[in-house]
Amino acid sequence: MLILGIDPGIGRLGWAVVERSGSKLTDRAHGLIETPAIPVPDRLRLIHEQFTTLLELHKPDAVATERQLFAANKTTALDVAKALGVVLLCTSQHGLPWSEYTPPEIKQAVVGNGSADKKQVQFMVTKLLSLAVVPKPDDVADALAIAICHALRTRVKIG
Amino acid sequence: MLILGIDPGIGRLGWAVVERSGSKLTDRAHGLIETPAIPVPDRLRLIHEQFTTLLELHKPDAVATERQLFAANKTTALDVAKALGVVLLCTSQHGLPWSEYTPPEIKQAVVGNGSADKKQVQFMVTKLLSLAVVPKPDDVADALAIAICHALRTRVKIG
Repeated sequence: MLILGIDPGIGRLGWAVVERSGSKLTDRAHGLIETPAIPVPDRLRLIHEQFTTLLELHKPDAVATERQLFAANKTTALDVAKALGVVLLCTSQHGLPWSEYTPPEIKQAVVGNGSADKKQVQFMVTKLLSLAVVPKPDDVADALAIAICHALRTRVKIG
Repeated sequence: MLILGIDPGIGRLGWAVVERSGSKLTDRAHGLIETPAIPVPDRLRLIHEQFTTLLELHKPDAVATERQLFAANKTTALDVAKALGVVLLCTSQHGLPWSEYTPPEIKQAVVGNGSADKKQVQFMVTKLLSLAVVPKPDDVADALAIAICHALRTRVKIG
C-alpha cells in the first residue's frame, strides 16, 4: 500500500510517498512543491498542476494530511487552508481516500509520545524508514511522519 | 463589463453576475452553489465543477471576493478558506483577474459608509440594481454587494 503524506503550504508543500508492505515501511519518494511569490490564484493553479502530476506519477492508494491548527499568524493559516483545499480537491478528483491526523496523533504514532518534540519525531522517521540521514527540509520530514502515522494506524492486526 | 461577485462557503456559496455599462449596473444572474454534508474533498470537487460551469456559462471579465476575516468559529473559517482556494484556482485556470475587498470597503462602496449594517447594504443593493425586492438569501445579497463594490471601484472616471 502506498500512502501519500502531505504537509500543506502555499509557498512550500512537503510530500512523501511511503510504502507499507507487511510491517515494513519504505520511503518511495519525497519532495517539495514550491511556488513563487505570484498572486494567490496562480500559486494555487501551480499546486493543482504539480499535485495532479504527483498523483498520476506515484499512484498512491491513500492521502493523509495533518489537521490544521491555528498558528500565531492567522493570514498564513488561511493561505495554508487554501492550498489544502486544492490538495483535497485533487484527492477527490482522483477518487482517493483521505485521512487527517492531529499533531499529537502523529507524534503518538511515530514516537509513542503525543507530546514528542520535532527532533524525536525526525529521529524516529529516520529509524522507521531505515534512512541514512535525517530527511530535509522539515516540510518533507513532516510529510514522511504523516504518511507513517497513517501506515501504522491503518495496519491490519493479524492473530 | 461583467463582474462575478462571490461570497464563499463550503455548504453555501453565493454568486452574482453584475454588468456595468457606463454608469448603469444590472443584475445579470445570481444563485447559490450548495453542497451536501459529504466529506470535504468531495464538497470541494462539487464546488470546482459547478464554479467551472458558472465561468463557462456567464463568461465574466473579473472575479471579486470579500477578504476573509476571522469569525468566532475557527473551524468554519478554515473550511471557508478551502472553498475560497478552489474558487481562486478556477479563476486562475480561466485566466481571469481577481480582486478582494474588506467588508468596510464593500460597505463604503455600496452605502457610502464603511460601518453600514446589513439592512442598509441590502437596501442599496436593491436600489443600485433597480430590483423589485431585496435579493435572498443573504449569501446572494452579499455576492451582489461584492460585485457592485468592484464595479464602482474600478469605474473609469471621464472628464
